[in-house]
Amino acid sequence: MIPTITAFAASPDRGRGLARDLRVRWALEEVGQAYAVRLVSFAEMKQPAHLALHPFGQIPTYEEGELALFESGAIVFHIAQTRAGLLPEGTNARARAITWMFAALNTVEPPLVEFSMARVFERDKPWYEQRQPMLEERARKTLGLLSSRLGDADWLDGAFSAGDLMMAGVLFRAKPTGILDGYPNLAAYVARAEARPAFKQAFAAQLAVFENGVAAG
Amino acid sequence: MIPTITAFAASPDRGRGLARDLRVRWALEEVGQAYAVRLVSFAEMKQPAHLALHPFGQIPTYEEGELALFESGAIVFHIAQTRAGLLPEGTNARARAITWMFAALNTVEPPLVEFSMARVFERDKPWYEQRQPMLEERARKTLGLLSSRLGDADWLDGAFSAGDLMMAGVLFRAKPTGILDGYPNLAAYVARAEARPAFKQAFAAQLAVFENGVAAG
Repeated sequence: MIPTITAFAASPDRGRGLARDLRVRWALEEVGQAYAVRLVSFAEMKQPAHLALHPFGQIPTYEEGELALFESGAIVFHIAQTRAGLLPEGTNARARAITWMFAALNTVEPPLVEFSMARVFERDKPWYEQRQPMLEERARKTLGLLSSRLGDADWLDGAFSAGDLMMAGVLFRAKPTGILDGYPNLAAYVARAEARPAFKQAFAAQLAVFENGVAAG
Repeated sequence: MIPTITAFAASPDRGRGLARDLRVRWALEEVGQAYAVRLVSFAEMKQPAHLALHPFGQIPTYEEGELALFESGAIVFHIAQTRAGLLPEGTNARARAITWMFAALNTVEPPLVEFSMARVFERDKPWYEQRQPMLEERARKTLGLLSSRLGDADWLDGAFSAGDLMMAGVLFRAKPTGILDGYPNLAAYVARAEARPAFKQAFAAQLAVFENGVAAG
């Protein structure tokens, strides 16, 4: 039995990799796990059947036999725990890779999402022009510290791990804002991630849903 | 050897449990693990020695022999993985408990933090009065869905787990805003968490730092 994930039937980003199922698809491709995709509309996401799977009415979800999970971080972690290829062997190295997963989601993503989402949802508000520099400064503070830590390394802590997958996934979503341009090593980090065959397959599969309405796994 | 964590030498919340070391202390108390605390000033947090431990210059950090971790979610997860008491036995139940950890940090905490932080840092801004209802609505949407899922259960998925520790910890930080008052089952959930001996010990230890300048573990 192969796992089934959910994804947007009509992604607001037109399939450009900004929806969070990209991370899950990418992780599945990295470990070589085939998967099925069930597309859900925005209306379906708010129905009891989907809320039973995802209490917050979002995508992605993950079903595998009796197991049902939600939250991209948790799903990627589960994939990394149960298949080889996304977490190092040693206990300490493993704990550090997991730390970067949490850091990506809880420290780096929030200011980037605030900054990017305000550009979409608050652009017509009277406060937008005045408030946006504050959000940009917060995002840049976090990116500056991340850039310092990465230095000229390829990945955050040795070989590519689920921590890098999550961090590069978070940075990738901020790329359209142009904010990464100020951090050449972070831009190169994301480019390295995008060059991975598993990322390319995941991206193509997500784009295909939008272009063809086909939920290819 | 016992682990050493870092905490604020002078917490902005005056030791009322809002700093993120509370979660780590609480987890350590739940599993019965003694620990040491090193207090750091805001100036020290931006110095290279601390940035080597925590790339984003925050607390808490966690040191245990050769292992150094940062990010409260990652530290609590490590404690839960390496000691008994915070994660269920079965593989699937364990994956679901971990899912609630990620949901607490990545889905529930961001809108609550945006709502609470704006009350502190944007109260004097010209847009505050106009913008705050939008933030409250976002926070309430998430809390409403969480409240529906919890229903009249004591904990999110069976027995108390690291998922509940993280979720209750996130909700506890929003309590001073009064927003939980609209969700009696969530308020009761946080009260159940606060009634746990391990929480009380963690809270008292954090308060003692502020009141006595003593870093008791």
